[in-house]
Amino acid sequence: MEKRLITETTARRIVRPRARNTYKGSFGHVLVVGGNDQFGGAGIMSAGAAVHAGAGLVTLATKPVNFTALHTRYPEVMATDYTDQDSLAPLIQSATVVVIGPGLGTDAESQTALTFTLSHLTAAQTVVIDGSAITLLSAEKTPAWPAARIVLTPHVVEFQRLSRLAPADQTPTAIQRYVDTLPTGTLLVHKSDRTTLYQAGAADYAQNTSGNPGMATGGSGDTLTGIIAAFVAQFGWRPDVVAAAVYTHSAVADALARTRYVTLPTMVIDQLPAFMDQLAHHD
Amino acid sequence: MEKRLITETTARRIVRPRARNTYKGSFGHVLVVGGNDQFGGAGIMSAGAAVHAGAGLVTLATKPVNFTALHTRYPEVMATDYTDQDSLAPLIQSATVVVIGPGLGTDAESQTALTFTLSHLTAAQTVVIDGSAITLLSAEKTPAWPAARIVLTPHVVEFQRLSRLAPADQTPTAIQRYVDTLPTGTLLVHKSDRTTLYQAGAADYAQNTSGNPGMATGGSGDTLTGIIAAFVAQFGWRPDVVAAAVYTHSAVADALARTRYVTLPTMVIDQLPAFMDQLAHHD
Amino acid sequence: MEKRLITETTARRIVRPRARNTYKGSFGHVLVVGGNDQFGGAGIMSAGAAVHAGAGLVTLATKPVNFTALHTRYPEVMATDYTDQDSLAPLIQSATVVVIGPGLGTDAESQTALTFTLSHLTAAQTVVIDGSAITLLSAEKTPAWPAARIVLTPHVVEFQRLSRLAPADQTPTAIQRYVDTLPTGTLLVHKSDRTTLYQAGAADYAQNTSGNPGMATGGSGDTLTGIIAAFVAQFGWRPDVVAAAVYTHSAVADALARTRYVTLPTMVIDQLPAFMDQLAHHD
Amino acid sequence: MEKRLITETTARRIVRPRARNTYKGSFGHVLVVGGNDQFGGAGIMSAGAAVHAGAGLVTLATKPVNFTALHTRYPEVMATDYTDQDSLAPLIQSATVVVIGPGLGTDAESQTALTFTLSHLTAAQTVVIDGSAITLLSAEKTPAWPAARIVLTPHVVEFQRLSRLAPADQTPTAIQRYVDTLPTGTLLVHKSDRTTLYQAGAADYAQNTSGNPGMATGGSGDTLTGIIAAFVAQFGWRPDVVAAAVYTHSAVADALARTRYVTLPTMVIDQLPAFMDQLAHHD
Repeated sequence: MEKRLITETTARRIVRPRARNTYKGSFGHVLVVGGNDQFGGAGIMSAGAAVHAGAGLVTLATKPVNFTALHTRYPEVMATDYTDQDSLAPLIQSATVVVIGPGLGTDAESQTALTFTLSHLTAAQTVVIDGSAITLLSAEKTPAWPAARIVLTPHVVEFQRLSRLAPADQTPTAIQRYVDTLPTGTLLVHKSDRTTLYQAGAADYAQNTSGNPGMATGGSGDTLTGIIAAFVAQFGWRPDVVAAAVYTHSAVADALARTRYVTLPTMVIDQLPAFMDQLAHHD
Repeated sequence: MEKRLITETTARRIVRPRARNTYKGSFGHVLVVGGNDQFGGAGIMSAGAAVHAGAGLVTLATKPVNFTALHTRYPEVMATDYTDQDSLAPLIQSATVVVIGPGLGTDAESQTALTFTLSHLTAAQTVVIDGSAITLLSAEKTPAWPAARIVLTPHVVEFQRLSRLAPADQTPTAIQRYVDTLPTGTLLVHKSDRTTLYQAGAADYAQNTSGNPGMATGGSGDTLTGIIAAFVAQFGWRPDVVAAAVYTHSAVADALARTRYVTLPTMVIDQLPAFMDQLAHHD
Repeated sequence: MEKRLITETTARRIVRPRARNTYKGSFGHVLVVGGNDQFGGAGIMSAGAAVHAGAGLVTLATKPVNFTALHTRYPEVMATDYTDQDSLAPLIQSATVVVIGPGLGTDAESQTALTFTLSHLTAAQTVVIDGSAITLLSAEKTPAWPAARIVLTPHVVEFQRLSRLAPADQTPTAIQRYVDTLPTGTLLVHKSDRTTLYQAGAADYAQNTSGNPGMATGGSGDTLTGIIAAFVAQFGWRPDVVAAAVYTHSAVADALARTRYVTLPTMVIDQLPAFMDQLAHHD
Repeated sequence: MEKRLITETTARRIVRPRARNTYKGSFGHVLVVGGNDQFGGAGIMSAGAAVHAGAGLVTLATKPVNFTALHTRYPEVMATDYTDQDSLAPLIQSATVVVIGPGLGTDAESQTALTFTLSHLTAAQTVVIDGSAITLLSAEKTPAWPAARIVLTPHVVEFQRLSRLAPADQTPTAIQRYVDTLPTGTLLVHKSDRTTLYQAGAADYAQNTSGNPGMATGGSGDTLTGIIAAFVAQFGWRPDVVAAAVYTHSAVADALARTRYVTLPTMVIDQLPAFMDQLAHHD
């Protein structure tokens, strides 16, 4: 398989100066479904990343125990309870992009929220499926893929659950063979120390050139989901948009790693607006 | 209709060095009524903006679920429950300026809080009516405008609900015609990518010259309400004071946008004291 | 009456480099009793100021609704419920300095906490009585002053409640005459745009030379109580130590005011460690 | 007894650039058990320090009242209830390093959590025993030391409880004699203004050369436990790794003390990534 590289040029082509005549509706509505009692931070980081990466509106559907932490840390994000389907349904419907999985957990409530959310999506929407949501779908005999455009963001172990490929067998060719079994157009972000991007039906794959081992910490993947969602919400659905998000996430961390041993998700979130400005304005 | 411009000069005339012989009572009491279970951040950002823009005292009347996020993020703000009318009544009475609407929602509790608050205002007070409060008033056959000085801050869609004017029909002349049906002296801040300011009975309108598309994010309008309230509380009730607040809100964001792709409300709030110092002291 | 000035020299004599052979017990235990359901931020700011001004240990006795905001914003502070007397009693006993009043409120629970706390203090301890605690004591026919060393920190209106002196009548001579009715050695910090310091039995008073109108905002007084407490806990009980605390509080704000229109309490708290370092080390 | 010195060289040998081919699992899982209703901040600071010092994954087992403060301040940390043994057991099992004690308290619930945790540890794991956990173990006739590698981190008073040695009698020889009664290989960090490190069975001890009196504040020891845990989780179990953690904790504070009178735990936590980068990269 041919390999392309995801570079700063990829990101610069996507992250362009905003048009003057715009308002918050121009930049989409991101809905993140995640954060149970134990993993509240994951949902909060995903939603916070979406706000800082430029989504027009962001809502976090989470367990109510997480509302206060969310409103304190990122008051720009709205909150709802993912176990309250009457509130969740219209939010799914109005979302440009839905992220499901960060810190969602794998109990009955999580399963219900996942099934409900996926079954309410439509073809014009994008869904980013991450973490526990991948684990839950992997446990189904035949995962019920939603009607929306799909981005899957497994790390090596989650991809093993999904594809039954042992880590050592996760070669580009084998990954692509699995991805080709998914709905046409589906993107798969295979997270590793050199993250790769595949599309169902494609002839080549892309490898990210940014990233550093200081990012190897809990929450890094949650943050990536929010950036992908915000990029698709603002810049539209295209493989290059997702590639630009993957690059940006790790490139922000690389900039931080010049002076830091670890580059925590919350640091990456804070630096997104400045980094994206450099992509857009300083050629 | 003649158009004036709202510029840095407008703001410099209002934001002057403080007199030596002053105390917190000199700078007024702002009461923000907003923030239901889902939209807590909106009330918090409005109140936080009022504190950073210089109000002497700020209280947020909100659902108790938001108290902790408020006290964590902006401990300078006092809290009360807007569904507890015995506590709310004296706070309305002692307020210099009341903001109602940010994240208030549109359910029965919101409606009750709105009606109660508006009916307790008196002629020497100012009320800033925003967001859900505008939506609720738009649903009334004849909105019961309060006895206070009124500032309305709708965005294009909220103004459509209020005036029945489709977005394309919201020309200065048509907006002014609607504003002229409101109580004399009422100010309307028509929020768009070039926000305009109208007064009932006036012969001209004013257009803001600051602002950038990086501000197009949830919470931007909530933040503006807090700044308007703090400006009126400190500098008095005059159209130019509201104009200076509108300018300052967007000019802070413009300064941030030199190095940031998006300029989030919480960033704007943090930068208010430094920006206002430049307006006041560095001619 | 003769007037002395409280200047940077006053503060430099008190804030000296720490001795090498010290541990957290060397710098005292500050207990703040304050923060009801509505005014949680006041207790939090007092306790946060005490930590940043160098107290060895700080506990906030507050309503449990405020625990989370406290632990989030200032995790160095321990928490207890002031309505739980079994927990409160040993904390009062082990405290070097007790602050009572910031955001305490004036209901029955507040009154009980005040009476309980004051009655458990002993002669070797210092108590800083502020805000609602002053209001509550003013309502008593003969305030039951505690056995401890006392610092009172009323603003003009609270001093009026205490002394029955109208603001215009609060001249140095009149204030001193009132202070002379208090237990010998009691200090009174009379807060205004030029704060003054009196001691029962003294022949002169002192006037602070720092401070600016950007400090005129809710929470400023709460912050001062924490600084006074931390100074006494570290540097001992002397009028000059309280004077140094008063100077430091306003001088930090003056430094901030060079670039900020308002200097909020939380900004002052954050800058205390750097400012005190300059006092101690950079002659 | 011979004394070695713990210096920057000690830390530089341990904190090395990370290998490229790593992921979060490469840097271990730290479980902190601590933080009751009153001392929530202690557990939060320990866990936050572990994240900032580079642990791959961090979970805080604490009372649920502390979940919100944790998720707000350090959303990278996962949360669980230490009174829920069904949830706690698998977390203990999967942990590389367990910290127990910061803010745990000494009531029945604390005792149960301590006994449960220690009894579930195995030989390949490390446990850092601090604060209340030392106090609880000191009250047992014969402390039931766990099967894991042990690091004890008492301050002078806690060591007195453990060893029955009065502070004046805590000479290196006497401390070593006590340590030799502990399971072979056990490390003891004897915290004082010049912290020393002992190992059961060793012929010499090590004295730290960093540290300053501005660190003498509540929470300092809690922060140290998180750093020790993260260092062992990343760099393996060796006395020099614990020594490097002790050095790093105080050296970060020394750097901060150049411009600050007190160097609070939360400041130290924030500066860990930058300081460790200097250790690793700038020879």
